[in-house]
Amino acid sequence: MPHLLHLDSSADPRHSASREVTAAFVRGWRERGEQFTLTSRDLHADPPPHLPDAALHWSPRLRIAGETVDPADEARQQQYLDELLAADVLLIGAPMYNWSLPSTLKAWVDHVHVLGTTVPFGEFEARPLAGRTAVVVSSRGASYDSGGEQASWDHTVPPLELVLGRSFGMSVSVITLQLTLADRVPAMADLRAQAAAEADAARSYAEELAGRITA
Amino acid sequence: MPHLLHLDSSADPRHSASREVTAAFVRGWRERGEQFTLTSRDLHADPPPHLPDAALHWSPRLRIAGETVDPADEARQQQYLDELLAADVLLIGAPMYNWSLPSTLKAWVDHVHVLGTTVPFGEFEARPLAGRTAVVVSSRGASYDSGGEQASWDHTVPPLELVLGRSFGMSVSVITLQLTLADRVPAMADLRAQAAAEADAARSYAEELAGRITA
Repeated sequence: MPHLLHLDSSADPRHSASREVTAAFVRGWRERGEQFTLTSRDLHADPPPHLPDAALHWSPRLRIAGETVDPADEARQQQYLDELLAADVLLIGAPMYNWSLPSTLKAWVDHVHVLGTTVPFGEFEARPLAGRTAVVVSSRGASYDSGGEQASWDHTVPPLELVLGRSFGMSVSVITLQLTLADRVPAMADLRAQAAAEADAARSYAEELAGRITA
Repeated sequence: MPHLLHLDSSADPRHSASREVTAAFVRGWRERGEQFTLTSRDLHADPPPHLPDAALHWSPRLRIAGETVDPADEARQQQYLDELLAADVLLIGAPMYNWSLPSTLKAWVDHVHVLGTTVPFGEFEARPLAGRTAVVVSSRGASYDSGGEQASWDHTVPPLELVLGRSFGMSVSVITLQLTLADRVPAMADLRAQAAAEADAARSYAEELAGRITA
């Protein structure tokens, strides 16, 4: 039974662009049949706490003297890890806030990037997520096309690619939609049609990708 | 009376490298005399919540229909803004966690980067923080020297430079210390002397900088 873990992190339940795209992906996934199961976790409505202790960056086997962790914190971390490890496909709605990740999504990342557990370290070489698929939906208020001055200003997708791709060994696809503030910012008024077209294209692509993605 | 706002965000009260450097800066600041006052805020011990509502990215004057904000959330945001606006110098301890900011520090950033309040937007052209000084203490477990493959993997300093420098108009200095995991990671054992030298240099520089920084 192929299983999807679907995360949203937009703090805007009223107008979220990333949530519309992840919803389209979920539609495409469900259309494949009821054996395509999913877990949805809304990181804004039910947020992970900030990482309570840096010792949680390490597998319990790798902790050093003086590092004791609250069992409740460890149990919460294990819940996030169990959800991730149960997923054949990971879908993340990742809006850009102030050029980097929402703090909710970063807190989730800090709970599941664990040396010696999800990330190989020293003699612990296992990479339990290697070869699985991740889809990142990256929404940005303005345009960060390559070629423009702002091309290097995106600090949302690159750290996710390092964590999911380089550390976990997942195969990462990115669906980008830009200009999500065109409806709101007067100076972007002439970009509204382009913004609507980008949003349409992102939703269509997400639904289509979900229908064929390897799980 | 020159005033310093000192933020720490390391989740490791036992071995934090960034906290030792910010403490050195604070020593240098205090040595200038009692008219050099400060506010210290520990974003780990007393963390800001995740931004509760995307409407808080905007000045109240810029909110649109349907955006109502919980007054308690707005009061908390105002407290962070007041602390920042009262500071002549901003000092931030910013460890790299999984190639980007601790979620606590990101949550603080998302509370104080407010269009129409701290960031000019449309007819609201004021930049109340322009010309003030920010010092970022960037600690990293490994080495991200320019020239190496990992030079582009730092997603902690660049978004802070965009927020503090480009948006707020502050003058941003960065104190970097690397190899902070050399004591812990067996494969980095031969880098321990270099790591200790980098930490010493960072502390000395921070204390010296605090003694002469324009406030």
